[in-house]
Amino acid sequence: MKELRVLTPDYICGLVDGEGCFYILDGQRKCCEFQVSQKPVAVLLELKAYFGCGYVKPKYDRSGTSVFVVKSTKELACKIIPFFRKNPLLVKADSFERFAKAVEIIACGAHRTAQGQKKIRSLKSGTSETIRQTSGTVSE
Amino acid sequence: MKELRVLTPDYICGLVDGEGCFYILDGQRKCCEFQVSQKPVAVLLELKAYFGCGYVKPKYDRSGTSVFVVKSTKELACKIIPFFRKNPLLVKADSFERFAKAVEIIACGAHRTAQGQKKIRSLKSGTSETIRQTSGTVSE
Repeated sequence: MKELRVLTPDYICGLVDGEGCFYILDGQRKCCEFQVSQKPVAVLLELKAYFGCGYVKPKYDRSGTSVFVVKSTKELACKIIPFFRKNPLLVKADSFERFAKAVEIIACGAHRTAQGQKKIRSLKSGTSETIRQTSGTVSE
Repeated sequence: MKELRVLTPDYICGLVDGEGCFYILDGQRKCCEFQVSQKPVAVLLELKAYFGCGYVKPKYDRSGTSVFVVKSTKELACKIIPFFRKNPLLVKADSFERFAKAVEIIACGAHRTAQGQKKIRSLKSGTSETIRQTSGTVSE
């Protein structure tokens, strides 16, 4: 990288449509994770600074690739979700919508109820009825 | 996809930094290819309309993925390269610069000279001296 481009909302949406993931984890502990993977770590550090949350770590499954991660429900609800509500995605719009609903359920504690757990499972699979799995993703 | 987002230069740069490739093909026929891969074909058709060139085809190596391709030297030189000169990339800035130089060499016919071929090989590998290969990519 010769120079650092200034991150704009549109640039971030394009990057996330390309390399972002909205995970709904349906294990014993229900939680959600927003991730963006990239080889050059600089752009991920820029993202971290832009959103003012999350962390950057190496991704062990692909050599040299790092990942920006936000998994705090509070930060997802207060920073990540409002950003993508204001700046809509194109490719991952559906994944984001299901993710946002799952975060909302967890944020208000409804994931502790049988109904909330069922709803999270259906959001994860993108269908109304599904068999429970231990983990997975709704991202393309 | 619930709605089609309007493509902006910044969005395209983010998407290309995530999923774009700048190929320099150093076989018997020297040529360059710009590609963007995505599962939902709609965004690729939007890209094709935005740039007013190239084509969209299925990518046979990954199920359900399509690719937007521009390989006409004239269209690369007149449409793709000026776009990314005006709207710089962040992650793939170096790959793009080498690609742009290779397109320039091919566009003016200098790839038919020994010096031009050597230069294309060095641009492809990103180093000044390299062993000739039949194909490859400069993209991350």
